[in-house]
Amino acid sequence: ASGSNLIRATLFPGDGIGPEIAESVKQVFRVAEVPIEWEEHFVGTEIDPRTQSFLTWESLESVRRNKVGLKGPMATPIGKGHRSLNLTLRKELNLYANVRPCYSLPGYKTKYDDVDLITIRENTEGEYSGLEHQVVRGVVESLKIITRQASLRVAEYAFHYAKTHGRERVSAIHKANIMQKTDGLFLKCCREVAEKYPEIVYEEVVIDNCCMMLVKNPSLFDVLVMPNLYGDIISDLCAGLIGGLGLTPSCNIGEGGIALAEAVHGSAPDIAGKNLANPTALLLSAVSMLRHLDLHDKADRIQDAVLKTIAEGKYRTGDLGGKSTTTDFTKAICDHL
Amino acid sequence: ASGSNLIRATLFPGDGIGPEIAESVKQVFRVAEVPIEWEEHFVGTEIDPRTQSFLTWESLESVRRNKVGLKGPMATPIGKGHRSLNLTLRKELNLYANVRPCYSLPGYKTKYDDVDLITIRENTEGEYSGLEHQVVRGVVESLKIITRQASLRVAEYAFHYAKTHGRERVSAIHKANIMQKTDGLFLKCCREVAEKYPEIVYEEVVIDNCCMMLVKNPSLFDVLVMPNLYGDIISDLCAGLIGGLGLTPSCNIGEGGIALAEAVHGSAPDIAGKNLANPTALLLSAVSMLRHLDLHDKADRIQDAVLKTIAEGKYRTGDLGGKSTTTDFTKAICDHL
Ligand SMILES: CC(C)[C@H](C(=O)O)[C@@H](O)C(=O)O
Ligand SMILES: CC(C)[C@H](C(=O)O)[C@@H](O)C(=O)O
Repeated sequence: ASGSNLIRATLFPGDGIGPEIAESVKQVFRVAEVPIEWEEHFVGTEIDPRTQSFLTWESLESVRRNKVGLKGPMATPIGKGHRSLNLTLRKELNLYANVRPCYSLPGYKTKYDDVDLITIRENTEGEYSGLEHQVVRGVVESLKIITRQASLRVAEYAFHYAKTHGRERVSAIHKANIMQKTDGLFLKCCREVAEKYPEIVYEEVVIDNCCMMLVKNPSLFDVLVMPNLYGDIISDLCAGLIGGLGLTPSCNIGEGGIALAEAVHGSAPDIAGKNLANPTALLLSAVSMLRHLDLHDKADRIQDAVLKTIAEGKYRTGDLGGKSTTTDFTKAICDHL
Repeated sequence: ASGSNLIRATLFPGDGIGPEIAESVKQVFRVAEVPIEWEEHFVGTEIDPRTQSFLTWESLESVRRNKVGLKGPMATPIGKGHRSLNLTLRKELNLYANVRPCYSLPGYKTKYDDVDLITIRENTEGEYSGLEHQVVRGVVESLKIITRQASLRVAEYAFHYAKTHGRERVSAIHKANIMQKTDGLFLKCCREVAEKYPEIVYEEVVIDNCCMMLVKNPSLFDVLVMPNLYGDIISDLCAGLIGGLGLTPSCNIGEGGIALAEAVHGSAPDIAGKNLANPTALLLSAVSMLRHLDLHDKADRIQDAVLKTIAEGKYRTGDLGGKSTTTDFTKAICDHL
């Protein structure tokens, strides 16, 4: 029942295991009495000419109206003549920053126990321009585009995030020793913004060196900001340090205050519908969404319950070495609320 | 004294710690009685118009003539109007494949004890084209170039390497889900070559996923082949798994059978001249050079002596947590020969 004090949020359950893990989020939110009313949208079965993709125009309008949403994995159907679902969302909603907190989960052992960092990825341009062509037979080129506007915007977001989240350092990741003009512009923008945040330490790290440092000692980093492709690579590397994409939340920030949280793992068609999926990444993404809405009490409660359930180790899904079903794991979380 | 049965090899001691670690290689080679006569070339102090860099034309001619060389770190002097030393070498000598074996060193503990892989990096094109420009104020672009010729050449090298080194699998690393034409062409070439090597398992791994897998379980990989920038990133990541660039050899393969081995770490100006540098990466690169010359006996002897010295742990340089000088560490290696 829709009440006037409920916040409307768009929910894309997505494909494969998406509906099951979305069900888990809905249940946890119900038990935690989160004042959210979901507006569910599914990926269409036909190309919508207004979006040039299987995403419907109405679903995009829903996010624009609600300004907040949660998204499960979407498998882009194979074939020509349409755009990737993830890229369509980023472009159409101008989701300019992808924010991925990554921290070691208490009680879930990996080789690293000291990870606590945030990757902030420029999400609209760079190597993802989609501009590619064949010059002559056997010679193809793709364009990487870096703009002052998008670089300033994501740098501003990163420094503001650092400041408002008690973080001390922002590292800009780049390869400006090779791409002097493109990555050089990105760095220039970061430097300009850094000047406005004298309380935040600013440094620049070359991407190859950054990856080496991350695997040797991830505690050297705090907030990392970078162009699109480097963000794609480094955020997955960081997820690997703490156990994988099944455990890491992600939130996309768009113009006009839009926040679309998402699980960035795949749709795992092999285990879809079998009650085996791990809802952790979507749950923690939902927590990011709540924080964006300043619902920190609810966010803390849910995050604590998820982490406690994983730490206890009694109920874990197969990907974490356990034998629990999605519903048993979810019930254990609800019991911890 | 130059004898007719000595093989001539070019030696670039390089900058910073370069001369000290080159001295270490020379000493080890003397004691091991390696039939090599070094032809030393230093980075010039003025721009040579024929190379547009501080590298002299004569030094490039030396590598072309000898077809084999060893290179220490080179710090590209800051300033305009000249090309990076490393990139000049790659372009002028057409060093199309950069080969980096990376394995856990017995007795030198990191978080990983099961690393044994080879990264093979396309070394001449891709994101390193140097083609960048400003389109309008605040909008810059850089061109990534992928050619059929260079992709086939490096793929051929990778499969041949796998076959002749008893390796079972080649993984092509890419981001063809986004760069469909450029990385797509790279994959197409790898597939063509793979068909000729039915005994080698061929697989394709997206770069973000590859980085996640590498930090979770590097033993999943064997030989990795990839475009330039991905190779830059992944080879450093892999070096980090086993302790860093101070420990990993590298060899550049060029047209016409040229092999230029190199230490890929920096010139460490802060410790230069202080007898503190670790010569391991240059020594193991020299070992790669010997293998290229089919001097496997000498290569084995030197490699064993280096690994034993590190494993014993009595003589280690500062970067490995020890207190030895470069000369003491080198002497310990010679004692193990
Ligand atoms: C699926 C793919 C297009 C996507 C990307 O490259 O951005 C994914 O890796 C991600 O990080 O969201
Ligand atoms: C110094 C730099 C230009 C170089 C590169 O990017 O190739 C280095 O990182 C390397 O891997 O040799």
